[in-house]
Amino acid sequence: MPRETGAAKSLRIGVVGATGLVGRELLALLEARNFPAGELRPFSSGRRRQSVPFRGRRLQAPGIDEKALASCDLVFFVSADEVSLRLAPRLSARGIWVIDDSSAFRLDPKVPLVIPEVNAHALLPSKRLIAGPNCTMAPIAVAGLALQRAVGVLELRAASYQAVAGAGREALEEFFSQNRLQSRRLKGGGPAPVLPQARCSALPQPIAFNVFPQVGRFGRDGYSSEELKVASELRKVWEAPNLRVSVTAVRVPAIRGHSLAAWVALRRPLSPARAQALIAGTPGVCLSREGDYPTPLRAAGKWPVFVGRIRAGAHSREICLWIVADSLLKGAALNSIQIAEILLRRGWLRSP
Amino acid sequence: MPRETGAAKSLRIGVVGATGLVGRELLALLEARNFPAGELRPFSSGRRRQSVPFRGRRLQAPGIDEKALASCDLVFFVSADEVSLRLAPRLSARGIWVIDDSSAFRLDPKVPLVIPEVNAHALLPSKRLIAGPNCTMAPIAVAGLALQRAVGVLELRAASYQAVAGAGREALEEFFSQNRLQSRRLKGGGPAPVLPQARCSALPQPIAFNVFPQVGRFGRDGYSSEELKVASELRKVWEAPNLRVSVTAVRVPAIRGHSLAAWVALRRPLSPARAQALIAGTPGVCLSREGDYPTPLRAAGKWPVFVGRIRAGAHSREICLWIVADSLLKGAALNSIQIAEILLRRGWLRSP
Repeated sequence: MPRETGAAKSLRIGVVGATGLVGRELLALLEARNFPAGELRPFSSGRRRQSVPFRGRRLQAPGIDEKALASCDLVFFVSADEVSLRLAPRLSARGIWVIDDSSAFRLDPKVPLVIPEVNAHALLPSKRLIAGPNCTMAPIAVAGLALQRAVGVLELRAASYQAVAGAGREALEEFFSQNRLQSRRLKGGGPAPVLPQARCSALPQPIAFNVFPQVGRFGRDGYSSEELKVASELRKVWEAPNLRVSVTAVRVPAIRGHSLAAWVALRRPLSPARAQALIAGTPGVCLSREGDYPTPLRAAGKWPVFVGRIRAGAHSREICLWIVADSLLKGAALNSIQIAEILLRRGWLRSP
Repeated sequence: MPRETGAAKSLRIGVVGATGLVGRELLALLEARNFPAGELRPFSSGRRRQSVPFRGRRLQAPGIDEKALASCDLVFFVSADEVSLRLAPRLSARGIWVIDDSSAFRLDPKVPLVIPEVNAHALLPSKRLIAGPNCTMAPIAVAGLALQRAVGVLELRAASYQAVAGAGREALEEFFSQNRLQSRRLKGGGPAPVLPQARCSALPQPIAFNVFPQVGRFGRDGYSSEELKVASELRKVWEAPNLRVSVTAVRVPAIRGHSLAAWVALRRPLSPARAQALIAGTPGVCLSREGDYPTPLRAAGKWPVFVGRIRAGAHSREICLWIVADSLLKGAALNSIQIAEILLRRGWLRSP
């Protein structure tokens, strides 16, 4: 928890995308973690014009006002890539701290991509534009970190079980409406029902009572953009350019927790017991007790990266993990707040 | 489609577990595939006493009657392990053909474990007790067969997305009832909801709006019984005793299609294009066109094993697959019928 210094108390904080699913979590976290926001300026990046709750009041979230952002000390971007691409470099060039949750700058070699538990050392006073990670990559980077540091990871394979909230508000509302529609068709007693395909527009396939292996668009090598993000971002935050990563990213009908079945192939043999001890010591990790495991329903609304089912993989140099984290929190809003808290602790956030 | 010979026309067929989810599919398939059942004798293995539909009539399914089974030519077991353990050896010792969908005899070296597309050669006139495969293993065995035959598989890793019907009728009804309950708590507009844990008894965790990595019980090495079944049964049907298999079996809120993200590590490099051509030639496989992929909703009620997203894995000797099959059909009832059709074609099914 950051100390509230006199100087920091009066920080002016901008939030671009405050009415979105991640934006709502960000405001709640600023409050819950007692972040010293002297003034909060929420902006809506889309068509949605509404008020957002903050410290017992409702604040209007108007359309983006660059002038108002330019007088902030710190701006969080929790919106689309295009919005970050347009505004984030201009603001950071003026000395304003920008923490960007979009994927626009994550692979830019001049921009630190930061998961505080993994690479807080990448934060520098001169680099005022900071990228937060992909919500599927972040839990893997935290859960596997101790194995990478202690033994070295050669290959990482992961199948994801990604919740619908990661695709945004429209996708979530599409899910709920499909669910209502299909539920009416379910009856007990007879054969297992064969449901018709529901209509979809926000997601590429119906998601209620379904799963589908498409998150983002497919590239020429057959991998989806989400799968490639996990690979390239993991190499960057672990500083492991030769790491081999193969991911199958799958959307599942969960609301807000991303789960992962991961196979971590190491440089040398490691017992599951030793792997467990290493992982248990990683900051930000919550390990399940023997025989138990995390689920998205249990992880929803919680801060840690949850890890369970640690066991040997296909050979003695491989460890299997089951990883779950709230995709809106550790995968997005919480990670951004944790970065801001480090800037605060290091005394880099000026008072206005 | 089997020819209806005069002799086979009057076959007497027993079905143990006819009122269950797989039993219902089995009866529908006997009808749809025009299997020459002169007389059908359905039995209920549980408490449920009800009639089942067959060829436009409703047949009563009484409790198991061993004497009535003993005068059948062929008995399908689609029920619990205990029921098969008790009755199947006694019936087959009398010369009655028994096709057992339970896991009771699958690993018995004296019992052929058969997936017709994979190892129909294991069927012998002297082996009248025949085991059908685990519903998660069957799609992998079919989808990966061409790679195993052409190049040889060294290691296989798979994460499953298993539908609820695979856990039986009570689990499916628990799913529907949780879904109704939780759906009432969903509202649009605000933050992404954090749902409470729903009560469960048929499944080890709530399944509506959730996923959980437990199918069966956990053993000492941390693997679940389902995961170990996939490994040991795949080694048996592929006749590959040294195959290294590591599975993470996960239940998802789909109704009746099991999906799998698989990494198949081969003895030598293979291009994805070549892998695709090999897999396309496998009987029982339906390949998705470029950029498309199967889902459980699309595969429900269908007979093939659907394969898509064929691409390179973590290295040049590895191929990734996305596999979906209806767990009640290819994973269970359809496979049993296909075995019976082979017995029929070979002229091994006597008329009574």
